[in-house]
Amino acid sequence: MIGKIDHIGIAVSDLASALDFYDSALGLAASEIEEVPDQQVRLAVIPVGESRLELLQSTAPDGPVGRFVEKHGEGVHHICFEVDDIDSALATLRAAGIRLIDEQPRMGAGGRRIAFLHPRSAHGVLIELSEKPWKAGA
Amino acid sequence: MIGKIDHIGIAVSDLASALDFYDSALGLAASEIEEVPDQQVRLAVIPVGESRLELLQSTAPDGPVGRFVEKHGEGVHHICFEVDDIDSALATLRAAGIRLIDEQPRMGAGGRRIAFLHPRSAHGVLIELSEKPWKAGA
Repeated sequence: MIGKIDHIGIAVSDLASALDFYDSALGLAASEIEEVPDQQVRLAVIPVGESRLELLQSTAPDGPVGRFVEKHGEGVHHICFEVDDIDSALATLRAAGIRLIDEQPRMGAGGRRIAFLHPRSAHGVLIELSEKPWKAGA
Repeated sequence: MIGKIDHIGIAVSDLASALDFYDSALGLAASEIEEVPDQQVRLAVIPVGESRLELLQSTAPDGPVGRFVEKHGEGVHHICFEVDDIDSALATLRAAGIRLIDEQPRMGAGGRRIAFLHPRSAHGVLIELSEKPWKAGA
């Protein structure tokens, strides 16, 4: 069901300064930067092996990442796992009595189907599931 | 320098209950459970793709994970990246003015050479580096 860690979402106050740290100190460079108005963030993608880091800077103080940084400071915001079939994964979670933020999949960055679990049901971790993109002919 | 996310360390209050969540709700089973007296934790390893989750339950209220859970509750504790050469990585970090918790590598679980960066220098994230094991003949 889960194939890999898709990405780790990291909330930062200043994207340029955080990108400079990852690049100059750790040798990890961003491959793209995009605005995701739906989630009220600017997002930098840093590939690492088969996974990615996603640095998230809030574009609105009352957005989800803005509120997180206000409350907790900068740090890890969520972990995203890649799943083959998100409908089946959500059905399993519901059957196990896990509280979901998204009862139904919604569209995330890159047109992927995603859903978040509630951290109270996941031992304090905000977990996102992201469905593997369909490949033509697969 | 960094090849992959080696593992994500997740602090939990009760290892058995957290393992049940990852297994029954997400289909992610632990491959091993070990005591790490040096870090005052019991640790469960859950393979995910090329990476792992490491669930950490404190064995001492005043240990690093015990204090984390007391202050923040359960949640992501650290991210570990695998590096080819930890001495070279630490030299680069020092040159970039990054504050280190471990100025020199120390032995971590499995006999690997590891070092932690200070989260104040890493935008709120506790980052561990772990040197890739040497392979015979490599």
